[in-house]
Amino acid sequence: MMNHSSAEGEAENTEPLRYLSKGEAAAIEAELLRDYRFGQQQLIELWGQACALAIAKAYPLSSLTKKQPTVLVICGPEQKGSIGLVCARHLRMFNFEPTVYHPKHSPHSLHQDFTVQCEKMDIPFLSYLPTEVQLINDAYNLVIDAMLGPEADCSNIKEPYSGILVTLKQVRIPIASVDVPSGWDAEEANQDGINPDALISLMAPKKCASAFLGKHFLVGRFLPYDIQKKYELNLPDFPGTDFLVKL
Amino acid sequence: MMNHSSAEGEAENTEPLRYLSKGEAAAIEAELLRDYRFGQQQLIELWGQACALAIAKAYPLSSLTKKQPTVLVICGPEQKGSIGLVCARHLRMFNFEPTVYHPKHSPHSLHQDFTVQCEKMDIPFLSYLPTEVQLINDAYNLVIDAMLGPEADCSNIKEPYSGILVTLKQVRIPIASVDVPSGWDAEEANQDGINPDALISLMAPKKCASAFLGKHFLVGRFLPYDIQKKYELNLPDFPGTDFLVKL
Repeated sequence: MMNHSSAEGEAENTEPLRYLSKGEAAAIEAELLRDYRFGQQQLIELWGQACALAIAKAYPLSSLTKKQPTVLVICGPEQKGSIGLVCARHLRMFNFEPTVYHPKHSPHSLHQDFTVQCEKMDIPFLSYLPTEVQLINDAYNLVIDAMLGPEADCSNIKEPYSGILVTLKQVRIPIASVDVPSGWDAEEANQDGINPDALISLMAPKKCASAFLGKHFLVGRFLPYDIQKKYELNLPDFPGTDFLVKL
Repeated sequence: MMNHSSAEGEAENTEPLRYLSKGEAAAIEAELLRDYRFGQQQLIELWGQACALAIAKAYPLSSLTKKQPTVLVICGPEQKGSIGLVCARHLRMFNFEPTVYHPKHSPHSLHQDFTVQCEKMDIPFLSYLPTEVQLINDAYNLVIDAMLGPEADCSNIKEPYSGILVTLKQVRIPIASVDVPSGWDAEEANQDGINPDALISLMAPKKCASAFLGKHFLVGRFLPYDIQKKYELNLPDFPGTDFLVKL
């Protein structure tokens, strides 16, 4: 049966949550695009928006310690970077003050469109990241890591991303990572990499998150029940009309 | 300054809310697509999702009187119909049981994609609308009117939509209209047309809504502040991270 238990009084889902391999995550996404005819623009918008909701939940405006509700969003060149751009735009509507650092502009037209949407909403873009970590600690309340996705080869990270990772390992403000922390292999927790305070898993958590002890959110409340069943995701119920659930 | 008053302790917006003409609404949308590089897919997804949130707010599952949380979504061939399809899909994730009536299939590929997304999520599609109104009153808790948008010529509505309007004028279950009630001119309240219980205005209310006495929601919390200012929309603050505000 389908996973809408609350409405029908079915028993609660007690099977353990699945942690996806890189291949499974890619297969689900391919199926959404090909068989369900979701668009990439549509998925990125939904994920980015839900990431902004998760950030606002984990770090409410009232909890921020700096005078301004500043947030630094670091965006990579692939899909995860686009999600970061959408997240920044929605955070702006929630009265945060995001700044984007987007070291390499992407040739993808969708990525460019999401960039224009941020620029034209007066979100500032940094032209370089200070290597003096104290400047980052002082200027921002937190860093959103939307840099490297599960497709990145974490044994061979190139500049400018390798340098940014060195900086991120030293920051003392919290880091919130989207899906897979940058520099981690999607399938194993990385002792040596960056150490996010929060993780926002898209659709289902990846294997690297199974021992994650920080704040962990699941987003993507649009996944067809047939896909949830086929991949035995055993997702928890999303409360009410929320687009995220705390794991 | 920009309209994010709550964070900066600015004075509350006290200018009256603007009710848009058809031309102003079209101009704002054209600007979003052309200058801000929003995609139509992106806008329709955001609007349809927010409509589902408004429906869940106005008619919570716990308030529905029928045994099943059924909802009939009537979708037209243009953008408003696509918004209805997205709304149906999100209502499904909120544990409603939407049924779609979609009398004329659209040749637009986006519209077709949104249709497939509903079909593949096991949302039933009616092949015809019962003319016996009692059957509709008995089967559904409410009707969502996503049929004719502001672009429709309301002095010359053709079949099958004119027949559907005759039926909708007779139903006794509540109707919730998206943006402009079907059959109304966007610029004037229609005494003679359908009589929605709820209205969900996209971006800003249209002139026809200025005397609307039912439940009225505003959705579209993504509108750039520069556009809000340029068109002097004087939108109310959206509370917290909500994507809708009750007017």
